[in-house]
Amino acid sequence: TKPLDLREAVAQYAASGVAGISVWREAMEGYTTAEVRTLIDDHGLHVVSLVRGGFFVDPTPEGRQAAIDENKRIIDQAAAIGAPLVVLVCGAHPEVPLPVARAQILEGIMAVIPHAVAADVKLAIEPLHPMYADMRSAVNTLEQANDLALATNHSHVGVAFDVYHCWWDPQLEQEIKRCGAHDKLLAYHVCDWKVPPSDLLLDRGLMGEGCIPLRQIRTWVEDAGFEGYIEVEIFSNNYWAQDQSSYIQAIRQAYLDHV
Amino acid sequence: TKPLDLREAVAQYAASGVAGISVWREAMEGYTTAEVRTLIDDHGLHVVSLVRGGFFVDPTPEGRQAAIDENKRIIDQAAAIGAPLVVLVCGAHPEVPLPVARAQILEGIMAVIPHAVAADVKLAIEPLHPMYADMRSAVNTLEQANDLALATNHSHVGVAFDVYHCWWDPQLEQEIKRCGAHDKLLAYHVCDWKVPPSDLLLDRGLMGEGCIPLRQIRTWVEDAGFEGYIEVEIFSNNYWAQDQSSYIQAIRQAYLDHV
Repeated sequence: TKPLDLREAVAQYAASGVAGISVWREAMEGYTTAEVRTLIDDHGLHVVSLVRGGFFVDPTPEGRQAAIDENKRIIDQAAAIGAPLVVLVCGAHPEVPLPVARAQILEGIMAVIPHAVAADVKLAIEPLHPMYADMRSAVNTLEQANDLALATNHSHVGVAFDVYHCWWDPQLEQEIKRCGAHDKLLAYHVCDWKVPPSDLLLDRGLMGEGCIPLRQIRTWVEDAGFEGYIEVEIFSNNYWAQDQSSYIQAIRQAYLDHV
Repeated sequence: TKPLDLREAVAQYAASGVAGISVWREAMEGYTTAEVRTLIDDHGLHVVSLVRGGFFVDPTPEGRQAAIDENKRIIDQAAAIGAPLVVLVCGAHPEVPLPVARAQILEGIMAVIPHAVAADVKLAIEPLHPMYADMRSAVNTLEQANDLALATNHSHVGVAFDVYHCWWDPQLEQEIKRCGAHDKLLAYHVCDWKVPPSDLLLDRGLMGEGCIPLRQIRTWVEDAGFEGYIEVEIFSNNYWAQDQSSYIQAIRQAYLDHV
């Protein structure tokens, strides 16, 4: 469980010199979008993105239509809190073969583009680690995410790149370059891969604690023209159970030392 | 912990109509190679492969040389028990960058090829799931395994393909075809991917229990010319804790129903 509610997180981030925040939809529960926006503005933070849309894959047409409708609401929420971007975890379903899932994802994104354009909110396809191809995302490499973003042929669709998902990929350097060359690199997330993780989902490492070559990847990302916020995203039962104020200081230090 | 020792496993496999067995080195402890060979022969089983060689990656030249020496001993063991094949888990090390690791793997394989030729034992590069790129294998896709096998330019080096590691890969069909076209498809392993697994290593599913399209992949493998044994390999604390005699029957049934 994430230990800080939105109000506490915003206050502690601002006090620690953090300049931006991506907001999870779950964290907005109990707040109106106007309250979220005011809360973040009042602390001088920038909203980097709303997390997360997507999940376009479903065995039934009704399920896919429901996902499209939900993504339109998510885009509206993003616009309402001043988020320029929605991160898409594109979806996967054990009953839907991966090639079909990938087609459903493209179809879902195409269906919400007009809504995204009207709201002026961009959509960032996040490739997820292959270990999540069963139920979270059929988009598992940066190459696939780039291909998909380019297939939409639309300036409002790009890619969110997280080192945790892609660090192992032999095509990583060239695909970061390709992503930047097409102006598709919209978000960049860091953490570390513990050796080995104790859990498929909730044992990410603090930067420097694992084996991801963070300095090298940052160079590739910046050489590709990325000038946005470098976001720290560490799903971790271990860290979430600790005192969050000293944890934020540890993140700050790890960022300075290793990113 | 694996519940059956080699003698029990061989007896139960033979009684269940299983025709072949791949032998793990750990399972040979306490037996001479001659005893292993006799034991398996006496039950009318074929030895499919010896598992496992590899682990060529190390930060030090001494470590890499030790791995090469160890792989020569493994090749000798394979020959001694009548195994035509050693499966290679190629290695990875958190202190060795992946591109360097991949070069060390090629170097290690090249160094043992003469020994493999002399013993007439083939080497099968097994691509491992990207979640094992931290400490088990820097070879994480079938494309990489094919590239590596072809780079050796040697008839004694091929590929071992396990659906658990590669099922998610968008290039899977074409790389199976390519592997077969170059006569490199030396081993084929099945199991299933539970949705989701509870553990990174030891929660594989029985065929039919997960989301891998086993029938489709088998068609690709057979269309690529594979005529060897289809091997069931299920690392699972859950299944290893059950009564092994009925578990073998369950495997047999799952194989007939889903592979």
